[in-house]
Amino acid sequence: MAIMPRRSAAAVAETRTAVLESAVDRASVEGLEGLTLGGLAGEVEMRKSSLFSLFGSKQDLQLATLNAAAAQFTEEVWGPVADERPGLPRLLALCDSWLDYHRREEMPGGCFLTTATIEYDARPGPLRDEVARTMKRWLRVLERDAATAIEAGELPDDAVPADIAFQLNSLAAGASYGFQLWRDPAVFARARRSMRRALGVKR
Amino acid sequence: MAIMPRRSAAAVAETRTAVLESAVDRASVEGLEGLTLGGLAGEVEMRKSSLFSLFGSKQDLQLATLNAAAAQFTEEVWGPVADERPGLPRLLALCDSWLDYHRREEMPGGCFLTTATIEYDARPGPLRDEVARTMKRWLRVLERDAATAIEAGELPDDAVPADIAFQLNSLAAGASYGFQLWRDPAVFARARRSMRRALGVKR
Repeated sequence: MAIMPRRSAAAVAETRTAVLESAVDRASVEGLEGLTLGGLAGEVEMRKSSLFSLFGSKQDLQLATLNAAAAQFTEEVWGPVADERPGLPRLLALCDSWLDYHRREEMPGGCFLTTATIEYDARPGPLRDEVARTMKRWLRVLERDAATAIEAGELPDDAVPADIAFQLNSLAAGASYGFQLWRDPAVFARARRSMRRALGVKR
Repeated sequence: MAIMPRRSAAAVAETRTAVLESAVDRASVEGLEGLTLGGLAGEVEMRKSSLFSLFGSKQDLQLATLNAAAAQFTEEVWGPVADERPGLPRLLALCDSWLDYHRREEMPGGCFLTTATIEYDARPGPLRDEVARTMKRWLRVLERDAATAIEAGELPDDAVPADIAFQLNSLAAGASYGFQLWRDPAVFARARRSMRRALGVKR
């Protein structure tokens, strides 16, 4: 970067962002492992050597794609509810935002992180480590609001924040792959009822 | 089969079973799509042409592997609880049997059907159709016992059998991939509490 004039650096960042958008879509269907510099080059109409200079290696491309998908998820799912009151109100709003995100199919292949989890959970390496870190970070977000809700008396005293995070995450993932598999949007209403039940809300 | 003497037909069936066991283990880590007659031939020390005569095509091998995995799951998870009293008692026993199965890691890569779902949910074709059928069949098993439990007053009147099936399946899958990802067996206790909570049982 040091030897590039400012304008080129900005152009490089822009190209990188555009390529990663394609990479995220592609990997959400084919998996991160199916992502190759060659395959992606054809899709974004760039030379493989140009992609190589942007990402360095297949693994760096995969890691950058995972991080881009996580950033997109945070922006689309967490973004709209960030200003809600912490605790139960924000958790309820978050569940709706999350299911809406899957219903809109922003990711053509369904939940990116679940797909990446399944893909790498039994394959040690930097990608699995990054998937594990990303997933843990998201569960912590849920746990924090569950803990706030318990402190505020909005959930039973004996509720366990990590249990609630696990339940919400499992149910959202179940809705995403259930919808992908059967294409029946009824699964979102089912998941919404299930998430609210997990949060002790009866409606 | 018609032109084979009886002993050969039995031997063929035995070989097929042994090959499918390897195929199930391999696909549970690498995915069904990663399964090839060539790759499997090396593992089971058979010629690719012999495997071809047993299975016909990669797709037939994949379908046979999926069915073998489903049969193994039914035998190991449903088998031990089949004689329990239908309704809540069998559902509770089933949840334990199911989590035990994942804890024992009978499938080296975690839940086979979840992996197959994620792999094929966004890829139309005979494999996706078979995954969808297999998953639906399993959810129906859960729904039937949930309906029995509701009729018997063991679950709230307003409980929805398909919701309960969805919850239990999502939580079991979450435990399986959570364990594969973090290797922390605490996820099974978490999933057990969560499943019992979904069934309205407080312990």
